[in-house]
Amino acid sequence: MIDDEFYLALAFKLASRGRFTTAPNPNVGCVIIRDQVIVGQGYHVRAGEPHAEVHALRMAGQAARGATAYITLEPCSYYGRTPPCTEALIEAGIVRVVTAMLDPNPKVNGRGIYRLQQANIEVRYNLMLREAEIINKGFLKRMRTGFPWIIVKLAASLDGRTAMASGDSRWITSDQARQDVQRFRAESDVILSTSATILADNPLLNVRWLSLPDEVKCLYENEEKSLRQPIRVIIDSANRVNPSHRVVQCEGKTLLARIKHDKNIQWPALVEQLQLPSCNKNGIVYIDLIALMMQLASRQINIVWVEAGASMVGALLSSSLVDELIIYISPKLLGSAARPLCLLPELEHLSDARCFDIIDIHKIGPDIRLSLKPILK
Amino acid sequence: MIDDEFYLALAFKLASRGRFTTAPNPNVGCVIIRDQVIVGQGYHVRAGEPHAEVHALRMAGQAARGATAYITLEPCSYYGRTPPCTEALIEAGIVRVVTAMLDPNPKVNGRGIYRLQQANIEVRYNLMLREAEIINKGFLKRMRTGFPWIIVKLAASLDGRTAMASGDSRWITSDQARQDVQRFRAESDVILSTSATILADNPLLNVRWLSLPDEVKCLYENEEKSLRQPIRVIIDSANRVNPSHRVVQCEGKTLLARIKHDKNIQWPALVEQLQLPSCNKNGIVYIDLIALMMQLASRQINIVWVEAGASMVGALLSSSLVDELIIYISPKLLGSAARPLCLLPELEHLSDARCFDIIDIHKIGPDIRLSLKPILK
Repeated sequence: MIDDEFYLALAFKLASRGRFTTAPNPNVGCVIIRDQVIVGQGYHVRAGEPHAEVHALRMAGQAARGATAYITLEPCSYYGRTPPCTEALIEAGIVRVVTAMLDPNPKVNGRGIYRLQQANIEVRYNLMLREAEIINKGFLKRMRTGFPWIIVKLAASLDGRTAMASGDSRWITSDQARQDVQRFRAESDVILSTSATILADNPLLNVRWLSLPDEVKCLYENEEKSLRQPIRVIIDSANRVNPSHRVVQCEGKTLLARIKHDKNIQWPALVEQLQLPSCNKNGIVYIDLIALMMQLASRQINIVWVEAGASMVGALLSSSLVDELIIYISPKLLGSAARPLCLLPELEHLSDARCFDIIDIHKIGPDIRLSLKPILK
Repeated sequence: MIDDEFYLALAFKLASRGRFTTAPNPNVGCVIIRDQVIVGQGYHVRAGEPHAEVHALRMAGQAARGATAYITLEPCSYYGRTPPCTEALIEAGIVRVVTAMLDPNPKVNGRGIYRLQQANIEVRYNLMLREAEIINKGFLKRMRTGFPWIIVKLAASLDGRTAMASGDSRWITSDQARQDVQRFRAESDVILSTSATILADNPLLNVRWLSLPDEVKCLYENEEKSLRQPIRVIIDSANRVNPSHRVVQCEGKTLLARIKHDKNIQWPALVEQLQLPSCNKNGIVYIDLIALMMQLASRQINIVWVEAGASMVGALLSSSLVDELIIYISPKLLGSAARPLCLLPELEHLSDARCFDIIDIHKIGPDIRLSLKPILK
């Protein structure tokens, strides 16, 4: 039984190879063991293509008969773009299945396990749940709540400043830190920003193949050709983005989150205007962020990566929409006239402060990267 | 010869046991080796008491004859409060001396080595210089420059805030972080603050025995009785501190750095008014910080630990007086209305930013402690 964790850890290792490509599907890995020998292994590479179990069973062939299958997530039991994995496992003669977690997808959620048990397969599950939560945090959150996993990226000086008073901010963090961001973008389904950022910096907000580290590049089966561009979502309540901005011109899809469509402008083919309800706060009209996130989840978006300014970050925090905060801190002091990291005008007392747990500390070149998780009150 | 580093590392380990007690003297350790056996060891415990070499020679006794002495700093060659160590080494019959660094004290600075060589002792020096620099950073800087080593301590939220707009700042960092500060205070000769801090918080600014960790407590030979209180230096250019403030009432010496003495007030015995030149900047009168630091060095102050507000920290940085920055970062966001970490009104462009190297990153309870060294332009 100790071996169960060992082989399942192997399956997780395989699963993680798909993390840049499987969206909107979860990352799943599978290892098939007979007489303590690995006879099959595989992972889910891309939605629409075979699941992890099918790859592993194909490799095992006849050796699967009487074997144990280690699968990081409950096998599916319904006909989707591919036939159900439960049936494949049964047919192949697997006698035992070890799986970390039930798939919260309402189409599965225990039905996979039930189907295997019906076929007299011994099933063990609910182990290595921490690993299972981490590897599919976006997919799991979407299945459970109808919201995507939202990561806010920030970059600041030691004294919490993002730009000089003049707006000068190129660059506060190092080349290495900005390259590190590329990896997070590539793992995300959406890069979210605002028209304020577009108008100020005119950024591309895309993934650049050459900026990805080698250990990430080797996970794309077809190199640059299989690179997936996250959808860029720009919150643009006053219709200020126009076709000349770089973000709507570059490769990949762009969604303009607006209160009203703009019917007179000719947009490039991959630009879509997304009409959203608004809310009014102190006379200022905002896009309803809750509605936006629910819309994105309904479009099968698992992970939203936010790169925006102090007011959008403040608004997301105030709506408790943030699942994770990634802060790059550059060892510089910019002084108190420089621009602040986030606007939280509602905070008056120290006890109101937004609090976090530090999940991870990394030195990135001369800078530091902190991963933080909000503590809900 | 490889052994030299090994035994010298041992001597450094011994030397560091004195770091809470030897001031104003440097930390020195000594190991005496004969036929690959440690026959003597010792370290300097307290100014006025025997030096490391004497402790080690006493332990070695006759075994010192023909032995090698490993000493972390060049042995002294002059009659101070104790007789010169060079003569003790020669008399004991030591035949070889390995020492990390020449003592930059103008009374020594090569004279110790010269005296040993005159007596036919083989001398090796200039090795493990990094260790030698770190362990006596304060003493070495004072000897070389006439200035103490100045460490600025800061505590802030992720967004670089030290208090809410109301001034509410108790507490931004954790108990553990505040306890960690006690150790730094105990290693310092001076705790420097300002009247602004005294008037706002009325702090004690002392070392509290019960707050020291056990591994520090065990370095005091006489427990609490041998605890050394750093001198508190309060910058008080407008004579705002009065005898009712806790900082002048508690154990240990307090210096009030002022432009003019205040002759009408009766102060406790251990309070001294230090008259300093002033400088005028944009119509505001400041105490000359350069003059203050030179005064402190002339009083044999090696390490100044600064706990002050945003303007004093800014002023020290602007005068290039900071050798080290220790920042405790608490994983909280306080918003942009909260108070800033440091005032650097002269900074306009990003290229003007004060830059640092990260020397050390430590998790302290829920917080992070960064040690930073200014990069001079």
